[in-house]
Amino acid sequence: MAIVVQNIDRADPDTIRGLADAGVATVHEAQGRIGCLASHMRPIYPGPRIAGSAVTISAPPGDNWMLHVAIEQLQDGDVLVLAPTSPCDNGYFGDLLATSAMARGCRGLVIDAGVRDVRDLTQMGFPVWSKAISAQGTVKETLGSVNVPIVCAGQAIEAGDVIVADDDGVCVVRRADAAQVLAAARKRMDAEEAKRARLASGESGLDIYDMRARLEAKGLRYV
Amino acid sequence: MAIVVQNIDRADPDTIRGLADAGVATVHEAQGRIGCLASHMRPIYPGPRIAGSAVTISAPPGDNWMLHVAIEQLQDGDVLVLAPTSPCDNGYFGDLLATSAMARGCRGLVIDAGVRDVRDLTQMGFPVWSKAISAQGTVKETLGSVNVPIVCAGQAIEAGDVIVADDDGVCVVRRADAAQVLAAARKRMDAEEAKRARLASGESGLDIYDMRARLEAKGLRYV
Amino acid sequence: MAIVVQNIDRADPDTIRGLADAGVATVHEAQGRIGCLASHMRPIYPGPRIAGSAVTISAPPGDNWMLHVAIEQLQDGDVLVLAPTSPCDNGYFGDLLATSAMARGCRGLVIDAGVRDVRDLTQMGFPVWSKAISAQGTVKETLGSVNVPIVCAGQAIEAGDVIVADDDGVCVVRRADAAQVLAAARKRMDAEEAKRARLASGESGLDIYDMRARLEAKGLRYV
Amino acid sequence: MAIVVQNIDRADPDTIRGLADAGVATVHEAQGRIGCLASHMRPIYPGPRIAGSAVTISAPPGDNWMLHVAIEQLQDGDVLVLAPTSPCDNGYFGDLLATSAMARGCRGLVIDAGVRDVRDLTQMGFPVWSKAISAQGTVKETLGSVNVPIVCAGQAIEAGDVIVADDDGVCVVRRADAAQVLAAARKRMDAEEAKRARLASGESGLDIYDMRARLEAKGLRYV
Amino acid sequence: MAIVVQNIDRADPDTIRGLADAGVATVHEAQGRIGCLASHMRPIYPGPRIAGSAVTISAPPGDNWMLHVAIEQLQDGDVLVLAPTSPCDNGYFGDLLATSAMARGCRGLVIDAGVRDVRDLTQMGFPVWSKAISAQGTVKETLGSVNVPIVCAGQAIEAGDVIVADDDGVCVVRRADAAQVLAAARKRMDAEEAKRARLASGESGLDIYDMRARLEAKGLRYV
Amino acid sequence: MAIVVQNIDRADPDTIRGLADAGVATVHEAQGRIGCLASHMRPIYPGPRIAGSAVTISAPPGDNWMLHVAIEQLQDGDVLVLAPTSPCDNGYFGDLLATSAMARGCRGLVIDAGVRDVRDLTQMGFPVWSKAISAQGTVKETLGSVNVPIVCAGQAIEAGDVIVADDDGVCVVRRADAAQVLAAARKRMDAEEAKRARLASGESGLDIYDMRARLEAKGLRYV
Repeated sequence: MAIVVQNIDRADPDTIRGLADAGVATVHEAQGRIGCLASHMRPIYPGPRIAGSAVTISAPPGDNWMLHVAIEQLQDGDVLVLAPTSPCDNGYFGDLLATSAMARGCRGLVIDAGVRDVRDLTQMGFPVWSKAISAQGTVKETLGSVNVPIVCAGQAIEAGDVIVADDDGVCVVRRADAAQVLAAARKRMDAEEAKRARLASGESGLDIYDMRARLEAKGLRYV
Repeated sequence: MAIVVQNIDRADPDTIRGLADAGVATVHEAQGRIGCLASHMRPIYPGPRIAGSAVTISAPPGDNWMLHVAIEQLQDGDVLVLAPTSPCDNGYFGDLLATSAMARGCRGLVIDAGVRDVRDLTQMGFPVWSKAISAQGTVKETLGSVNVPIVCAGQAIEAGDVIVADDDGVCVVRRADAAQVLAAARKRMDAEEAKRARLASGESGLDIYDMRARLEAKGLRYV
Repeated sequence: MAIVVQNIDRADPDTIRGLADAGVATVHEAQGRIGCLASHMRPIYPGPRIAGSAVTISAPPGDNWMLHVAIEQLQDGDVLVLAPTSPCDNGYFGDLLATSAMARGCRGLVIDAGVRDVRDLTQMGFPVWSKAISAQGTVKETLGSVNVPIVCAGQAIEAGDVIVADDDGVCVVRRADAAQVLAAARKRMDAEEAKRARLASGESGLDIYDMRARLEAKGLRYV
Repeated sequence: MAIVVQNIDRADPDTIRGLADAGVATVHEAQGRIGCLASHMRPIYPGPRIAGSAVTISAPPGDNWMLHVAIEQLQDGDVLVLAPTSPCDNGYFGDLLATSAMARGCRGLVIDAGVRDVRDLTQMGFPVWSKAISAQGTVKETLGSVNVPIVCAGQAIEAGDVIVADDDGVCVVRRADAAQVLAAARKRMDAEEAKRARLASGESGLDIYDMRARLEAKGLRYV
Repeated sequence: MAIVVQNIDRADPDTIRGLADAGVATVHEAQGRIGCLASHMRPIYPGPRIAGSAVTISAPPGDNWMLHVAIEQLQDGDVLVLAPTSPCDNGYFGDLLATSAMARGCRGLVIDAGVRDVRDLTQMGFPVWSKAISAQGTVKETLGSVNVPIVCAGQAIEAGDVIVADDDGVCVVRRADAAQVLAAARKRMDAEEAKRARLASGESGLDIYDMRARLEAKGLRYV
Repeated sequence: MAIVVQNIDRADPDTIRGLADAGVATVHEAQGRIGCLASHMRPIYPGPRIAGSAVTISAPPGDNWMLHVAIEQLQDGDVLVLAPTSPCDNGYFGDLLATSAMARGCRGLVIDAGVRDVRDLTQMGFPVWSKAISAQGTVKETLGSVNVPIVCAGQAIEAGDVIVADDDGVCVVRRADAAQVLAAARKRMDAEEAKRARLASGESGLDIYDMRARLEAKGLRYV
């Protein structure tokens, strides 16, 4: 059952870049409010906003062997995405693996488990979104798989799907939907820009979004 | 059952400012060690220390409609306080709502749920204390209420109560008690100042607080 | 049952300094992947990397009296380590206790409960690793013990054991093992240095660590 | 700040009995879907369905002294409701306190903390809804209050409010609303009875509740 | 985005019955130790062991409208499987919906959220595996989808997949794999039967499973 | 580092039986309110009350190999106690291992991880106290140790310590303290018996325990 899928399709690089610029909140709204990983996935340092193609890893609890295998599969612009086969907060990943991943153009790691060497990772500028920070190390005894479909922090992810991540968390976009989602995201950003100015001037959102009649129809009473 | 209370009483602005200067830990001690919200309420960025009058919101899970309604009720110096009617970590609030709230003088948001656009909110200097950070958006389908009594993160809060918040978390002071709590807080701060110098010089707290006899009476043995 | 053990043995100061330089992840690997406290123990601000001799505290829930007692037992280079006798996230410790502890040369606090005044503690440069940040104060009514064996965040700790703590969390080293663990940690750091350069140049970890044959033997298939 | 309020108003006994018969789910719906305590409040054994007047207790963490004080205030048909002033899962209550409470007509305990002697309590038929089961005992050192307003498991509760509890959890009904809520609950039960028969015969809820047009208007598509 | 897929493929009824007899632990081992839902999914009463075809539901937090829609899609032998689009522990399902589902041959409900009326459901013999028990009701305002792919309690599930559930939790078997997994499960049960007798007679598992040499090779020392 | 300690000292069998009769709550009080494992350790079925000598197991996450090794070390009257080296809720133990353990006189299992086949275990009458119930299986790849000191659910436990477990949870008694703790437990039970009768007759605990003066001295006010 332990396999490494070597050839995966990836989305268009410009589309991926555009999704990074849009950010997680906008992207997930643009695709119909779906795709957010669970809110326990937090960045190890604030600031980064990335997007990349998922190289997925299914790994046993407390065993990071498959990370070594997966790094060899990385191409420039990829993001590692690891889901343990059962819950685990061990530190699967640290500065040596990050050095190796960066050498192959990796943009970051999304891991529903733990990470360590966070001071080094921060200095190296290698962003990670994780469930935990833990120095607790792992073994290399049991196989897992690379580039198979996984469920990570509540979302189904396939190799080559686009991962968008920033301070708000992580979102997955199906590879086939990437271009269409980017178009919807850009439309949304344009619409927001116009509203931001009106809101900043003190106008009420109830007027801008034309909500008063609907609130009244639902029965809201002002007292 | 969905109502908006439009006229609420607020505490004296100078008292509120004084409570902000005292900070959460001192204020809650000054009123008898009560009023702290649960420790899962964390600031989205470190540093801010605020106090303001609560504009309360009771909202359904996954529905942020009432935030739009509540923002219209804000006056300068208010703090939005939202409790979902059942547990939810969706991102109810982001940079557009913050723009609107800031335009009306709002000092921050306390929300026992999720918030998003945290990078923007940090840059705007709009402080939030929340249970979660999540890009997961919400709908506008079901009514809630504004300026009704709520229970937020374990504390009962009424509209117009004073909310104090800083890096230690969030505390509520009943509106009617605000002046008296401020007086007690100031007394406490003065007493602490004198003790700080003695402790910094290496004197034992056991002597400063005169604890040795009581420890012995309770049966503490040195071995 | 409430006792204060006044004379405890400590490890060699140079060894302790060496363990601080090695950091938590390396130290716990060097001693056979043991000693990490649970991952919920997080620093209140990023950056510090310390090691020191444990002055242990067993304290009742919501009662910080024994911290005052323990501080008097501190020697230069010690670290306070507090475990509540039942789970509690109250703020046992703040800036006044930190002032007193720093005056006696204390290097930090590890507490499986809450801490407060975190803005002050950050400015003072007094590092704390805790389960929670909470302004909720405590009483001084019930005795506990100082320098007795405790279990803190899942690890058994004795007075005089070496505590190592950084952004990755907290690790305990038995006092008697400290020198040997430091030697193993240094060997490990040297070995890592050589590998880092090879990994940075793009060489695969599968070759550097000679993993290919073993992966194949376990049955990994490339497809 | 430590007080015992000795005279509290209670709801009409027949109304309370009626609310017990209706059960938690129906009662909370009848009052507009409010009043449910958090879902971590679970019965220690299945089966009991009770209602009674709240005798409220605010107690320090790890200190059950106020339970002894509160029991003296019990009248026939009352329910003890305890909220710790900060989170705690100690076993505040066991078979001796239950013996004393039953002797005064107490119908059960609702406690946002721990309970012990659950085998004895089960045999005695004294129902408890709690956050935890824990043998960990408590002290009697610090005062709290009895029959003051508390927040228990997320709900504000005042002495004399009606507590309804069964296998679905716990719900609070304001004393003043009890009669009206009972009337609404009965109406609701009657309506449900008619629908149950139609549903059991296989008729679709979409027809019984007349939902098809509204689903279509919202945009639901059958494919 | 809100759709109801009306025609779904189901596995062979005899295969499904066989999987029910094998039970969750055996089935998940037989398919390579995959497919278990998270361990927070617990039965509301002990004893039932079921298998059936998944009718999947993606529902908004706090909104059970789609359950009414899904029940109409049920065929004899189906199991309802609901995943909320964001975490929620409200009671989506109670005795009326169960009455309707049973009338259409439904074998049970798997829900990564809350359920209520558990006393009635127990008496009716309608089994549920849920994350929570909560009387807190829901609204019918926002659409979701039926028979679309969902992620429920950490597992990707498609309509028509086989759900196996018993006291150990819940496991999903891909529809296309069901026959092969059943064959592997039966082989496994036969092998276990022989071993059970030897183990019951006191023979050591180390001999039965021939582990001694491998333990020694890995370095286990008896002292 | 992987060792099996083959000869361990055990407490006197009659003392162990006596501690079982006293039960967890009484035993932990009798030894000064210490020794309770965390409250997440719950019995898989209600009713059993046991005591036995600990055979301890330190096992990697997701690897149950050492259970097979430990079972060979069991003597009549022992209790298996397993702590994973990092948090894990996999099902380490099921009916086959229980069959083997029972054949050697094992009284039960205490495991800060998961267990499965709970219906079978219940029918066999093999009691387990665990953190989780999970069908998720484990591998046999990595060594651990048997009869070494462990920390299980927050308590330090050594091989041969007495484990007491019932519906209230689990408590550990140091082997050397067992006789003395039993004596204290019996004294406590006798004292409780007398008080039970007085409490059942309606006498107030405030009088029986002579609390009124101390409550008044602390400042309790009746209003």
